[in-house]
Amino acid sequence: MTSAAPVAPLISAYRGVRPATTPVWFMRQAGRSLPEYRELRIGHSMLDACLEPELAAEITLQPVRRHGVDAAIFFSDIVIPLKLAGVGVEIVAGRGPVFEKPVRTAADVAALPTLTVDDLAPVAAGVARTVEGLRAIGDGTTPLIGFAGAPFTLAAYLVEGGPSKEHLAARTLMHADPDAWAALMAWAADASGLFLRAQVLAGASAVQLFDSWAGSVSLADYVTRVAPASARALGHVADLHVEVPGEPAARGDQAGDQAGDQKVSIPVPKVHFGVGTGELLPAMRDVGADVVGVDWRIPLDEAVRRLGGAVPVQGNIDPALLAAPWPVLEAHLRDVLARAAAAPAHVLNLGHGVPPETDPGVLTRIVDFVHGLTQ
Amino acid sequence: MTSAAPVAPLISAYRGVRPATTPVWFMRQAGRSLPEYRELRIGHSMLDACLEPELAAEITLQPVRRHGVDAAIFFSDIVIPLKLAGVGVEIVAGRGPVFEKPVRTAADVAALPTLTVDDLAPVAAGVARTVEGLRAIGDGTTPLIGFAGAPFTLAAYLVEGGPSKEHLAARTLMHADPDAWAALMAWAADASGLFLRAQVLAGASAVQLFDSWAGSVSLADYVTRVAPASARALGHVADLHVEVPGEPAARGDQAGDQAGDQKVSIPVPKVHFGVGTGELLPAMRDVGADVVGVDWRIPLDEAVRRLGGAVPVQGNIDPALLAAPWPVLEAHLRDVLARAAAAPAHVLNLGHGVPPETDPGVLTRIVDFVHGLTQ
Repeated sequence: MTSAAPVAPLISAYRGVRPATTPVWFMRQAGRSLPEYRELRIGHSMLDACLEPELAAEITLQPVRRHGVDAAIFFSDIVIPLKLAGVGVEIVAGRGPVFEKPVRTAADVAALPTLTVDDLAPVAAGVARTVEGLRAIGDGTTPLIGFAGAPFTLAAYLVEGGPSKEHLAARTLMHADPDAWAALMAWAADASGLFLRAQVLAGASAVQLFDSWAGSVSLADYVTRVAPASARALGHVADLHVEVPGEPAARGDQAGDQAGDQKVSIPVPKVHFGVGTGELLPAMRDVGADVVGVDWRIPLDEAVRRLGGAVPVQGNIDPALLAAPWPVLEAHLRDVLARAAAAPAHVLNLGHGVPPETDPGVLTRIVDFVHGLTQ
Repeated sequence: MTSAAPVAPLISAYRGVRPATTPVWFMRQAGRSLPEYRELRIGHSMLDACLEPELAAEITLQPVRRHGVDAAIFFSDIVIPLKLAGVGVEIVAGRGPVFEKPVRTAADVAALPTLTVDDLAPVAAGVARTVEGLRAIGDGTTPLIGFAGAPFTLAAYLVEGGPSKEHLAARTLMHADPDAWAALMAWAADASGLFLRAQVLAGASAVQLFDSWAGSVSLADYVTRVAPASARALGHVADLHVEVPGEPAARGDQAGDQAGDQKVSIPVPKVHFGVGTGELLPAMRDVGADVVGVDWRIPLDEAVRRLGGAVPVQGNIDPALLAAPWPVLEAHLRDVLARAAAAPAHVLNLGHGVPPETDPGVLTRIVDFVHGLTQ
């Protein structure tokens, strides 16, 4: 980026300032919906693809090239920080991550290996390579979002030993042994936070914490047993700044090192997203998020209302509509965008990840459509 | 029942009148948590067990004998009315119901076979046998609740061809072809409603409509694309009455045929339950439910508030707490019961089904604990 470059629309929106057009990207935009991804993955396991820097970077760049989205999101898997720490886990096709040994007791928690910065070298290398690649796409300013699963989602995987529907074993441990639970959540928070930190230090311009499974807990449990760890995870990037063109405008901004270069250093924007978390939105903001992601279950204006009107939001296209005829999908997009007017700023996204069977042409069409509108 | 028998606490609570002690039963109380169930099922497929009257009755009675719960719930499976209509479906262990051919188009919907009253004969026989068996347990007044999956849940199975996480194909059809969707939902509503009707005519004293998957739709979609069919399903039992001891007290009550026998005929109580449906509770009441079931995600007093304070509620023990030490579970039970004071009446239940690995002794202990308290 040069001092003449505009602030990327994504970063502007994440800071609560509406850009001329609504930025748009798609959760799980890198992945199975793209034929070029399916081709590239041949002969590579999922976790290998995440940990091979060149491959992870290329997969991350594919949807940026194809769709012209306003952000790249680093291609990774929720269990990568656990794997890198030394936890025995593999991705089993059609099932998801399966762990060698579920974590069920205080002793199991105490025996978890510690994730170090060195362990994260393949991730840092992949991010650096991605950021370099992004400079060669379009006007070279597309930002990269760093990615991590939130502590609850990581802990649920660890306790269950794999995917589960209502995360009963994890939620039992939460109440049956609150100390072991707190220790596990602190461990997961550090794994999650260090994973995010490595990505920002390597060049990511924003981070998103995914709490895929937070929707299975009550607000009371969320506030007392989950939120402190999510705050701890985001705390690992609280001191990090990213450089953007412009002038200091908000609390936390710092003038650039060189006078007159019109660059400022801003705190890295932090997005927090969960599925089925309509009841939890303010609590999810309060862990230190700048932006809150909203699934498709509640209208965006209602989400904004629950958030008190002052928080930028991201979402909330119903993924089921991607397979509907275009006029139906367009009406839905217009509805989401209209409801987003209640927020200080909005980043258009799905309410959950791109379904694997999605026609990628539909995603490109959404980007073109949204970029053709002016706010 | 004789004219001297008290109104069963369950029926009293379902009518909004608090009995001396809180009635309690458990969703999926009949099933894999019981060793006597696992033994009885040997050599019988799930669907065979549901359709063999003697077996279904015995399985239904097992938890009443063991736990002393305040209700039996007829042992069945959500897909039974579809199976009886002639839809090709089998239960695959570890996966759930799998259909020969998903229903995806208007033509597929039009080709669905019609469920008739005659098809439901095995269900009616199982219910009659259960009601007879209940007369021999305790004081002989334990009521039987009839069971059916709600139209959305049935339709989601049919469209997906099996279990699915976010019911994308079903929710796509809902928007992509609203007419085919409406026709499918009407078909499912009749299957669901006739299934309930057969159970009430054979002796069930109440019904519960389970919309396991309604939590995946927004309120707007629920109201326009789901609720009309749920209302249609419950409409199939709207004219049915059940006889209970007592005197006419409420709208819809009718005096018994014989003067002086102190029996009244009341409209069959209708319970409506879904998982993750905190946003939908009033809409779920408005389809014609007398009682609303609440999962564990929102506190019961908040559910009562959303329901306007006038509706009896059922729930909402967190199933994850069943495996916690008793003092933790007891504190949770006391909290649920205290919050239930906001409702006109409350039936204690789980926020979802009994997990298969549950220690059945814990369920018995819950019943004894609750019956030992006076309201």
